[in-house]
Amino acid sequence: MFDPASLRFDGHGLIPAIAQDADNGEVLMLAWMNEESIVRTLRSGRATYWSRSRQAFWTKGESSGHVQELVELRLDCDRDCLLLLVRQTGPACHTNRRSCFYTAVRDGTETEIMAPAL
Amino acid sequence: MFDPASLRFDGHGLIPAIAQDADNGEVLMLAWMNEESIVRTLRSGRATYWSRSRQAFWTKGESSGHVQELVELRLDCDRDCLLLLVRQTGPACHTNRRSCFYTAVRDGTETEIMAPAL
Repeated sequence: MFDPASLRFDGHGLIPAIAQDADNGEVLMLAWMNEESIVRTLRSGRATYWSRSRQAFWTKGESSGHVQELVELRLDCDRDCLLLLVRQTGPACHTNRRSCFYTAVRDGTETEIMAPAL
Repeated sequence: MFDPASLRFDGHGLIPAIAQDADNGEVLMLAWMNEESIVRTLRSGRATYWSRSRQAFWTKGESSGHVQELVELRLDCDRDCLLLLVRQTGPACHTNRRSCFYTAVRDGTETEIMAPAL
C-alpha cells in the first residue's frame, strides 16, 4: 500500500507537487502538499494543496470552480516530489491563464506567451 | 531584460525547477536552482542546478553524459518556480529511467510504470 508518510517532506512538512494536464502534457502549476492534503486528494479525487501563505488546505477550484480532477498521482525516485496528472476545468492560474508558466525568457527578455481566457 | 535576482527564492536562496521534455512534454525531474545556476544555465545553454546534498553546482550530465540542452526557460505567475523545456540526452533519472517519475499510485499501491534503459 502507498503510505504518504513514507514520502520525504521538507522542514515545513511539505512536498512540491507539479500539476500536469493528463490529456496534452502541459505543465499547469506547482503547489505544495502536506501529508494530510495527499490523503484528501486521493480520497476525494480532487487536487487539494496546502497554501503556505494562508496556512490552510486549498482544494483547487473550491471558490473559482476551476477544479483539478486527479487522474494519477506519481512520485519521483527521491520520494521528495509529486506529479499529479489532472483534468483541469478552466484555467489553472489565478490570472485566468491556462497555465501559471505563461512567461518565457526569450533573447534575455521576459515574454508573455499565453493570454488570459476571455 | 530578465534579471534572475527578480525571482522569489526560498530561505535557502533556492527555487524549484521542473525539467520537461521539449519534444513530447514528459516531465523528467524536479531540481533546485540558485541565482548563479540560472545565470550559468542561460549562458551555457546546459541545465545547471544546485545540489542541496552536495552543496555544489551540478551541470546535469557532466559525469553521465546525460545532458539537458535548454530550449526555453519559463517562470510562473508568482515568480517562485521555473519550468525548463529541455532536450534530454539519454535518461534524466539517476536510476537510468527516462523520467524520475516512474512510480504511480494505482489502486492505492505503488506501481513501477517505467523500466530502466538497457
